[in-house]
Amino acid sequence: MSTQFHGIIAYPITPFSSRDGSVDLATLEKLIDRLLAGGVHAIAPLGSAGESAYLSDEEWEAVASTSIKAVEKRVPTVVGISDLTTENAIRKARFAERAGADAVMVLPVSYWKLNDEEIVLHYAAIGNAIGIPIMLYNNPATSGIDMSPALIARICREVDNVTMVKESTGDIQRMHRLSQLTDGAVPFYNGSNPLALAALAAGATGWCTAAPNLNAALPIALYDAMRKGDLESARTVFYKQLPLLQLIVKSGLPTTVKAGLRLLDFDAGSPRAPLQPLSADATKELSAILSALSA
Amino acid sequence: MSTQFHGIIAYPITPFSSRDGSVDLATLEKLIDRLLAGGVHAIAPLGSAGESAYLSDEEWEAVASTSIKAVEKRVPTVVGISDLTTENAIRKARFAERAGADAVMVLPVSYWKLNDEEIVLHYAAIGNAIGIPIMLYNNPATSGIDMSPALIARICREVDNVTMVKESTGDIQRMHRLSQLTDGAVPFYNGSNPLALAALAAGATGWCTAAPNLNAALPIALYDAMRKGDLESARTVFYKQLPLLQLIVKSGLPTTVKAGLRLLDFDAGSPRAPLQPLSADATKELSAILSALSA
Amino acid sequence: MSTQFHGIIAYPITPFSSRDGSVDLATLEKLIDRLLAGGVHAIAPLGSAGESAYLSDEEWEAVASTSIKAVEKRVPTVVGISDLTTENAIRKARFAERAGADAVMVLPVSYWKLNDEEIVLHYAAIGNAIGIPIMLYNNPATSGIDMSPALIARICREVDNVTMVKESTGDIQRMHRLSQLTDGAVPFYNGSNPLALAALAAGATGWCTAAPNLNAALPIALYDAMRKGDLESARTVFYKQLPLLQLIVKSGLPTTVKAGLRLLDFDAGSPRAPLQPLSADATKELSAILSALSA
Amino acid sequence: MSTQFHGIIAYPITPFSSRDGSVDLATLEKLIDRLLAGGVHAIAPLGSAGESAYLSDEEWEAVASTSIKAVEKRVPTVVGISDLTTENAIRKARFAERAGADAVMVLPVSYWKLNDEEIVLHYAAIGNAIGIPIMLYNNPATSGIDMSPALIARICREVDNVTMVKESTGDIQRMHRLSQLTDGAVPFYNGSNPLALAALAAGATGWCTAAPNLNAALPIALYDAMRKGDLESARTVFYKQLPLLQLIVKSGLPTTVKAGLRLLDFDAGSPRAPLQPLSADATKELSAILSALSA
Repeated sequence: MSTQFHGIIAYPITPFSSRDGSVDLATLEKLIDRLLAGGVHAIAPLGSAGESAYLSDEEWEAVASTSIKAVEKRVPTVVGISDLTTENAIRKARFAERAGADAVMVLPVSYWKLNDEEIVLHYAAIGNAIGIPIMLYNNPATSGIDMSPALIARICREVDNVTMVKESTGDIQRMHRLSQLTDGAVPFYNGSNPLALAALAAGATGWCTAAPNLNAALPIALYDAMRKGDLESARTVFYKQLPLLQLIVKSGLPTTVKAGLRLLDFDAGSPRAPLQPLSADATKELSAILSALSA
Repeated sequence: MSTQFHGIIAYPITPFSSRDGSVDLATLEKLIDRLLAGGVHAIAPLGSAGESAYLSDEEWEAVASTSIKAVEKRVPTVVGISDLTTENAIRKARFAERAGADAVMVLPVSYWKLNDEEIVLHYAAIGNAIGIPIMLYNNPATSGIDMSPALIARICREVDNVTMVKESTGDIQRMHRLSQLTDGAVPFYNGSNPLALAALAAGATGWCTAAPNLNAALPIALYDAMRKGDLESARTVFYKQLPLLQLIVKSGLPTTVKAGLRLLDFDAGSPRAPLQPLSADATKELSAILSALSA
Repeated sequence: MSTQFHGIIAYPITPFSSRDGSVDLATLEKLIDRLLAGGVHAIAPLGSAGESAYLSDEEWEAVASTSIKAVEKRVPTVVGISDLTTENAIRKARFAERAGADAVMVLPVSYWKLNDEEIVLHYAAIGNAIGIPIMLYNNPATSGIDMSPALIARICREVDNVTMVKESTGDIQRMHRLSQLTDGAVPFYNGSNPLALAALAAGATGWCTAAPNLNAALPIALYDAMRKGDLESARTVFYKQLPLLQLIVKSGLPTTVKAGLRLLDFDAGSPRAPLQPLSADATKELSAILSALSA
Repeated sequence: MSTQFHGIIAYPITPFSSRDGSVDLATLEKLIDRLLAGGVHAIAPLGSAGESAYLSDEEWEAVASTSIKAVEKRVPTVVGISDLTTENAIRKARFAERAGADAVMVLPVSYWKLNDEEIVLHYAAIGNAIGIPIMLYNNPATSGIDMSPALIARICREVDNVTMVKESTGDIQRMHRLSQLTDGAVPFYNGSNPLALAALAAGATGWCTAAPNLNAALPIALYDAMRKGDLESARTVFYKQLPLLQLIVKSGLPTTVKAGLRLLDFDAGSPRAPLQPLSADATKELSAILSALSA
């Protein structure tokens, strides 16, 4: 089961109506169709790029259901869960399972820093509550919690359905350590866009990315070249898309992707306040990058 | 108006029922009475210590209303607001104002990092929505957002009702900078417990602290000694309480304060999962510290 | 013996000839006379400000001898030693003792990071080689080695003649910890200029500073006010000199002090390459600050 | 000229006599012969691993001359220069050129932090003084100076004979940036051992490493596999040597390599104090790793 996720796992942003800021489910369906038409290998709604942190519970559930239905099992779906309390995380995980998700991706979020025991108990409680696999997600920059490779390996041992790991610290040595500590038996996924080439070289099973919202072809070309061992092509296609990857990371995924979609004539609204639309300067830079890629 | 807050601003924890984990408002009232009996100069419900991040909206409103009523205007009340979206922050700020709060304390919380413009707009939107003063709160360790002294000074200039600043980074040089950049005209408050002596020496108007939940006499004694310029007594009383301050910071405010209240025969329940009760070892250490202080 | 050092411990820069860059011993003597005339409580040649890192062994010895002679026992002299090898540090410590130094200040310098054992052995070897007290000096920003309060306390216990500690990390909590771990029995000195007020509030015995090269009166006034417990005056005089302290730290001590001496018509040359003279912009800022202080 | 350096650039440690600690030139010659017999593509004496920071000027010159002679032009030689003053760095660079070095590797070392201008002037002064190429070396962990990719690219533009870059920060994104900023025209070399696979994937021209002192076959096998585009073999051989790479970095290159050489019956003495011989526990771990590699 755990090995079904591989390749380019695409993170759709959550469209908001330009009129009233409400979640725009029809546009979400169109976006998912676009991603699948682009050839991505899996869909991951409600990740960081999906602004899940800024949705009400009702909105969250609507996005989860709609996404799973829109995918129609054409590829696997993994639903992101990042909640401050264990109780809410369990409620959402059960909802996702009932709605037909193939897996959930779980990011512990801190207000108060959590110690190792607290993190393990958080995953164990969610794991016990559902029957589908969990992708552990480490992203201290957004969540405020940094799980060491040793802690991640421990959770994989102690919680049965934690069977995949997404690493977003941007430190390739974390992936090396994880591979060593799990004897290469736990598939890991890259969550730091500019690290894609290095992570695939290190043996990552897939790349979790919001870039396909703007361009699915280049991430897929990188993955394919690396699978074929064609390092030179991989390097070429990686450096080609690197300016885009760097900009979406630097200016924020939902902010930059939504600005880019608008440049591509696909209106998915703006991010929610306090997030603001991309600045004019960065939009200009993004426009130049997208033009160069489509040239 | 802005100068009414001074001295020891006490942060009550939010008691939960040991039976079912629900908010225990009756115990909250008792706790606030205890704090006032101890002589604190202001009450600040729903701060970090109050686990506001782990409350539902309904619970948050109940704690805000109950606290304001329990204080009965004996001292000023400042209500903490730390929300991911500007919309929710405004809703809570308005609720607090209607419920009779003397001020709100606003902490911007990040999932996606906010740039300076976004932070200014967040404060401006809240400021425009209410008529009571705002205490700007900087605490990157919990919120993921670090506001530089220059940005804080700018917000104080641009948003009329931001009239006070709480600094919790633990870097005394931030307070120096803030004092310089505002020509000493914006009162600042220390939010980093072990920095209390240094901050008062640097000119802090008050100390925002959860320590009075366990011992109000020592923080008040420090404040009084510093106001009188009795540096030697201040130093003595500071070093006396320092082990308590260090432990509550190291082990987490709600976790440690709730364990301490239990040791003092005042049951306020445990923190909410994923937070766990204080470990046995740390509880032993806390018990020894509290015994030494009451000796 | 250890308690003889207190108050303002002044760090003379090392003058270089504007003609050929050689060490200018005559100007060094004049500078020391100036510092003593200004009322400082001790002299510390060959510290960080003294560019000891950029001197040949012969130059180092000449500066040590000349300084000790110029002080003429009017106040105590502590000679700075910061060498990459234990052997060279011992050689210099013995030289300083023979030349009449009252103490040496020892900073371990790293190329390869040192572990705790290696640092303890370094201090023990130097301690065994000399009969005068050692001031342990912690300054990770220049030396690359950060000694925790626990390690510093251990060295004070294990090496007899380590009887004083100079802390330059700029973290007031280090001083609190040190005081706790040594039961207040080891005098500590502030080495981070902008921390002076906080450190003296926390109980520092003295302040090690290069500021007196440019203005001795203000540091002495701060020390005196704090000794008298006149916190309000202390605060006033601290904030008055703070812009100077911030600038010399930000732009580098020898670079900024030498530019300032030139502005004060006291030519002590420029720092050694790769260090360059202070930029025109910073010199202008420094000039404005010095004018304001002398007004 | 700049492209002559490629592949595995081996960094010999500097042997010291077990009798009196003096530099053991005869053993150095034997070590260099061993490295060349192992098939490395270049030799780099007096790097970080060579303890250049702990040698007197006379010792440094003897190691430089002896190394160049021992290599006998069988492969290129690059001599490491890391001095606190520009004057000393120039003197050594000229010595190396006269002695027949093919290039020098220059690391600016800080006591006082250097600004960008000071770093550029340092490289320019050295570049003007010699006629052989310079490999710019960035290693903030040992030198205290961190050069951004933008600064490095600027130096490559402004100083003619800076034609190669060695990056040791362990951040693969620095190499991406450097490649982008120089349009791929400046060859870069990996100096962070555990980053070897990622760096070669990213397009590094070579790998600067002390690992060949203990095992030359595995680094060479990694380089060869990557050149052939055999990613799977590369990954296998990388993970095989990774424990060795991690240990030599964690415990310090000269310390660990010298302990390893002793385990391999090649006595090169111990590192110089304050460095101490490898601890018993780490030696045991190293012994197990070396046994596994030779099995």
